[in-house]
Amino acid sequence: MLIVMRQDALEAEITGVIAAVGAMGLDAVPIAGAERTVIAVRGNDRPIDPSRLGSLPGVRELLPVTRGWRRSAREQHPAATVVHLPGGITVGGGAPLIIAGPCAVEDERQIIRAATAVRDAGAAALRGGSFKPRSSPYSFQGLGTEGLRLLARARAETGLPIVTEAVDVETLGAVAEVADVVQIGARNMQNYSLLRAAGRAGRPVLLKRHAGATIDELLLAAEYILTEGNPDVILCERGIRGFDGATRNLLDLGAIPLVHRLSHLPILADPSHGTGRRELIAPMSLAALAAGADGLLIEVHPEPEHALSDGAQSLDLGAFTSLMHELRAVGAALGRPLAEPAGVQA
Amino acid sequence: MLIVMRQDALEAEITGVIAAVGAMGLDAVPIAGAERTVIAVRGNDRPIDPSRLGSLPGVRELLPVTRGWRRSAREQHPAATVVHLPGGITVGGGAPLIIAGPCAVEDERQIIRAATAVRDAGAAALRGGSFKPRSSPYSFQGLGTEGLRLLARARAETGLPIVTEAVDVETLGAVAEVADVVQIGARNMQNYSLLRAAGRAGRPVLLKRHAGATIDELLLAAEYILTEGNPDVILCERGIRGFDGATRNLLDLGAIPLVHRLSHLPILADPSHGTGRRELIAPMSLAALAAGADGLLIEVHPEPEHALSDGAQSLDLGAFTSLMHELRAVGAALGRPLAEPAGVQA
Amino acid sequence: MLIVMRQDALEAEITGVIAAVGAMGLDAVPIAGAERTVIAVRGNDRPIDPSRLGSLPGVRELLPVTRGWRRSAREQHPAATVVHLPGGITVGGGAPLIIAGPCAVEDERQIIRAATAVRDAGAAALRGGSFKPRSSPYSFQGLGTEGLRLLARARAETGLPIVTEAVDVETLGAVAEVADVVQIGARNMQNYSLLRAAGRAGRPVLLKRHAGATIDELLLAAEYILTEGNPDVILCERGIRGFDGATRNLLDLGAIPLVHRLSHLPILADPSHGTGRRELIAPMSLAALAAGADGLLIEVHPEPEHALSDGAQSLDLGAFTSLMHELRAVGAALGRPLAEPAGVQA
Amino acid sequence: MLIVMRQDALEAEITGVIAAVGAMGLDAVPIAGAERTVIAVRGNDRPIDPSRLGSLPGVRELLPVTRGWRRSAREQHPAATVVHLPGGITVGGGAPLIIAGPCAVEDERQIIRAATAVRDAGAAALRGGSFKPRSSPYSFQGLGTEGLRLLARARAETGLPIVTEAVDVETLGAVAEVADVVQIGARNMQNYSLLRAAGRAGRPVLLKRHAGATIDELLLAAEYILTEGNPDVILCERGIRGFDGATRNLLDLGAIPLVHRLSHLPILADPSHGTGRRELIAPMSLAALAAGADGLLIEVHPEPEHALSDGAQSLDLGAFTSLMHELRAVGAALGRPLAEPAGVQA
Repeated sequence: MLIVMRQDALEAEITGVIAAVGAMGLDAVPIAGAERTVIAVRGNDRPIDPSRLGSLPGVRELLPVTRGWRRSAREQHPAATVVHLPGGITVGGGAPLIIAGPCAVEDERQIIRAATAVRDAGAAALRGGSFKPRSSPYSFQGLGTEGLRLLARARAETGLPIVTEAVDVETLGAVAEVADVVQIGARNMQNYSLLRAAGRAGRPVLLKRHAGATIDELLLAAEYILTEGNPDVILCERGIRGFDGATRNLLDLGAIPLVHRLSHLPILADPSHGTGRRELIAPMSLAALAAGADGLLIEVHPEPEHALSDGAQSLDLGAFTSLMHELRAVGAALGRPLAEPAGVQA
Repeated sequence: MLIVMRQDALEAEITGVIAAVGAMGLDAVPIAGAERTVIAVRGNDRPIDPSRLGSLPGVRELLPVTRGWRRSAREQHPAATVVHLPGGITVGGGAPLIIAGPCAVEDERQIIRAATAVRDAGAAALRGGSFKPRSSPYSFQGLGTEGLRLLARARAETGLPIVTEAVDVETLGAVAEVADVVQIGARNMQNYSLLRAAGRAGRPVLLKRHAGATIDELLLAAEYILTEGNPDVILCERGIRGFDGATRNLLDLGAIPLVHRLSHLPILADPSHGTGRRELIAPMSLAALAAGADGLLIEVHPEPEHALSDGAQSLDLGAFTSLMHELRAVGAALGRPLAEPAGVQA
Repeated sequence: MLIVMRQDALEAEITGVIAAVGAMGLDAVPIAGAERTVIAVRGNDRPIDPSRLGSLPGVRELLPVTRGWRRSAREQHPAATVVHLPGGITVGGGAPLIIAGPCAVEDERQIIRAATAVRDAGAAALRGGSFKPRSSPYSFQGLGTEGLRLLARARAETGLPIVTEAVDVETLGAVAEVADVVQIGARNMQNYSLLRAAGRAGRPVLLKRHAGATIDELLLAAEYILTEGNPDVILCERGIRGFDGATRNLLDLGAIPLVHRLSHLPILADPSHGTGRRELIAPMSLAALAAGADGLLIEVHPEPEHALSDGAQSLDLGAFTSLMHELRAVGAALGRPLAEPAGVQA
Repeated sequence: MLIVMRQDALEAEITGVIAAVGAMGLDAVPIAGAERTVIAVRGNDRPIDPSRLGSLPGVRELLPVTRGWRRSAREQHPAATVVHLPGGITVGGGAPLIIAGPCAVEDERQIIRAATAVRDAGAAALRGGSFKPRSSPYSFQGLGTEGLRLLARARAETGLPIVTEAVDVETLGAVAEVADVVQIGARNMQNYSLLRAAGRAGRPVLLKRHAGATIDELLLAAEYILTEGNPDVILCERGIRGFDGATRNLLDLGAIPLVHRLSHLPILADPSHGTGRRELIAPMSLAALAAGADGLLIEVHPEPEHALSDGAQSLDLGAFTSLMHELRAVGAALGRPLAEPAGVQA
């Protein structure tokens, strides 16, 4: 940390700050410049709580140098994390993974039909919500445990690994029993009890960025899972708050290469939630892949106009199939061919 | 809802939309304009899920008219909600309530000293965190149940009602046993399991706005508590994301009069988290009061430079006492004198 | 500036950076920490262009210490700037100045009626646009020079000094001939040719913050005026971009005390543009005053429902008169009684 | 426009609104719903100024239906605009145009070297600023007319058309004499005098989106140029304000397909300014191309570490050459091969 003193700081104030740093067991190095003195702090192995120093007399501002994330930091773990799913599928291993399926599991016919179709088009994993966190208590909340049963059936039919969301500690166990990847939704990104429980659930975790969260906060949230001993964390950019109401969310694709630089964890993009508008999904899926995403999460519904949720941001099967052709072409052009779906499990 | 058709929409597309609305049991009224046709939908008593209509051919966009919040809406419940706390203290009844105290309970001496001092300065309720949700797993997480015991001691000493946070369903019961108001923090604003449990916990709930949440989402989150039968919901603006890093958060004071217009629920402001900088707390506290806030949540620490958390945004006792003088003067000038602390409970 | 090296930076890279700093005529002080080396740069009297250093091998990031604003900085000029207007009116001298009037000058009757009424209610200066920058080329663009003539008439009738906008270098001269304060609108905040010309126009300048500008950029824009030799710059917060469409703009009142801390220049608030909704103007005017604003800019129209622009965010005369009563009470409570209108000039 | 009445609106208020609409020469169609009445307005051929209606008693809110842009709207001009540059180069005609070069022209050797190198790597146009708008008056402001002369020399050497910025009406003529495309920078996006002058300057105009502007405002700004009779407007997304300080700007790639849907004008992306960090330029360039951009504006400097401005966001020649290889591959995969540089002009 760097402590920037005010231009008019008194000698006694500078000495006071140096003493305060020393009292914390750390080392203070004053650097007297033409305009002001700056005091560098050494010896800390984690971020310093600014509370104690920021309020000392004569201090203008604190500039942190050490970041808060440790287990997720690439500086400390240069090799990329590769998460292994059933059927030899990996995330972060170079081959982008396309995860597709409906927003919500609605009934057996719908999920089987969707799963089969996205698999035939080339998706290598199935998404589908069974517990649905909704902004309004009056909206459809998902089928719950019945939906989990249907997802298991869809996997048996198609061989696709299942990505599905857990919304609370109470139902996490049931979800983890069925899911190949447990999703923590954006609204729960800082639900620390749930993150900790997910870190102990024995499954890879897909952690979505909150629409109001910085990259820093996303990596710190991942830290809650990693510290419980679960190394298999997959991040996901799914759109953030912007000032222009023209799109529901603003897909922050710059987050993809930035996370790759800061962290060894894989990161996906979700262009369906990330834009909220069907006609933007295909171009933004291609853009996310080109930006280096380790995979995509795409909402596909056999009949978007009859979907119980998020129909407006779902592709139909025809549109998804066309998009897969383009994704394959771009993946190949970039030297990163898409992951292929595994064979049906016996 | 209003369905805006494209300029080049075919007659058959317009007919198709009208039929789709009819199939939902609703009434469609086409209005042919010079430029395009617009179709008004009538007969719905809650917001229409846009999924089904937004994807029909010929539709350009949907404009919602009905809002999602119902129990929190002032249009439907014109009278302001007044929340009653022990000692005759109320929130929303006209007299602004100043709730002050440290970010976190640290030890008995600290919390008793803080409680006594803020009471002497005129605060009518005590805040203090015992379960602390922190962005980093490596930061101080609070004293837990031991902290609750210390808060109860501080109440016994000072008579001040207690506002303290619950972070998960597991510990909510213990918090509700001690707290006079259960706080749901900003990070948990959309933790729906926790909101529902808080709606059944038998205590008033203070619901803080997430830094990335719209007013609409805040009111919808309140709806989760209200639908469980708990009418005593107090909202709180505590700073939102802005593009200027000069302050940690951007205190959105326009939210105060806007919420008063849209909802009957009382709303507080938290200028400590809302700015993240000590020197902005006093002016923004005065501003929040003048904007119509039903109360303030202010971090006060006997020794900010030794605080275990948030010291940089805590006032010391002297600064808080001066601020209380100014708040009293402005409250009186506005015809809204501050709530006075109750007598010590026997 | 502080140059933060990567953890894995080579010794040669550190030496390279030190050499590069030396080649710029500056002093490099390496500080070897447990985790990484940080290099402090000394000897610069203005911000260092990060281009040259940020791209050197081994550099992780640059942390600037010196700010770019100099003439506007309070650290260098502790005494508050007081701007003097005709009739003994001042801005920044302690007595908040209420500037009121219609968005646009529409005709003689309207502007005289508005000027007389706002003066009678206690406003001490008149606002009114004659050259109107509008987002759409199809909207009313103002009366131009004819409007300036009407403003001069209104001043002759009421004695109120005139605040009116200049939109380009071409018409700045005509505006400066009539205006007591030349306003530079938010859209032109970074129109540097206009700022420079305003710095030479011989009138105080009211510089409005762009809805997408940081405080830092606002102060840098002021610097363009100050460097031309005009010390009379008045800043104005008028609402910034936020993610919640519930209000047209988000009035950033935290900017008021922050600017007071960083700069000696006075700062006003414009709650009319800052909220875009009439029902929020009164509470946000009071809030801005309580936050320490040196004055307010309020849109008042004799008949808002017939206004040619911005009617939806204008107060009528009755509402403005009530608001003035409350502003007077709050100003008095804060020890900052409002500036009184001067007597009519002979 | 749709006028949404309050639930408790009186019959007389509804009648009043209908009469007010009639008085504007428009047609009011009341639609009585279960909850409230909504009044549709017909007969307007441009957006209705909300001032007059929003303030009538009983009105809750106004929902606009007609957009403000007309000449830039795809609904009214379905065919894509194709802008023709010398040497047979086009923008918007299907072949993405890569425009590369230094942020600023610094001297003859630098600009010739840069121009030759980017041409050899495959860029088909040259960018380079001669008049530089800078946030701080103390930063390098460009070489002015001398820089224009050097750009003309670079064109003579390489045959590349020139894109360079005009910062004010005074120097626009000199710029237009040399430039093949006149750039209006983001800070001047709403400098309407400059936009109008650019609309009469006889050159294609590249209009950059302000970091705080919505898509709607960008298209309205384009309208100022188009209404002067200049159809050759090229838009450019160059990064907007976001809440995460991790990147200087947030490149809003969703704007690319959205503009393509709303407007017939071509749109480029500028990943250099759009990210402000060199290591993000290549992935975001690829992403922008995949999102459908009609071209890219990339800062390339022979020696970024010696650049007089923006070195931190410039690629060196090696990095640019590698990026061009990848862009070519992705363009080919998407069926949109890049525009090739024209032959040297005799």
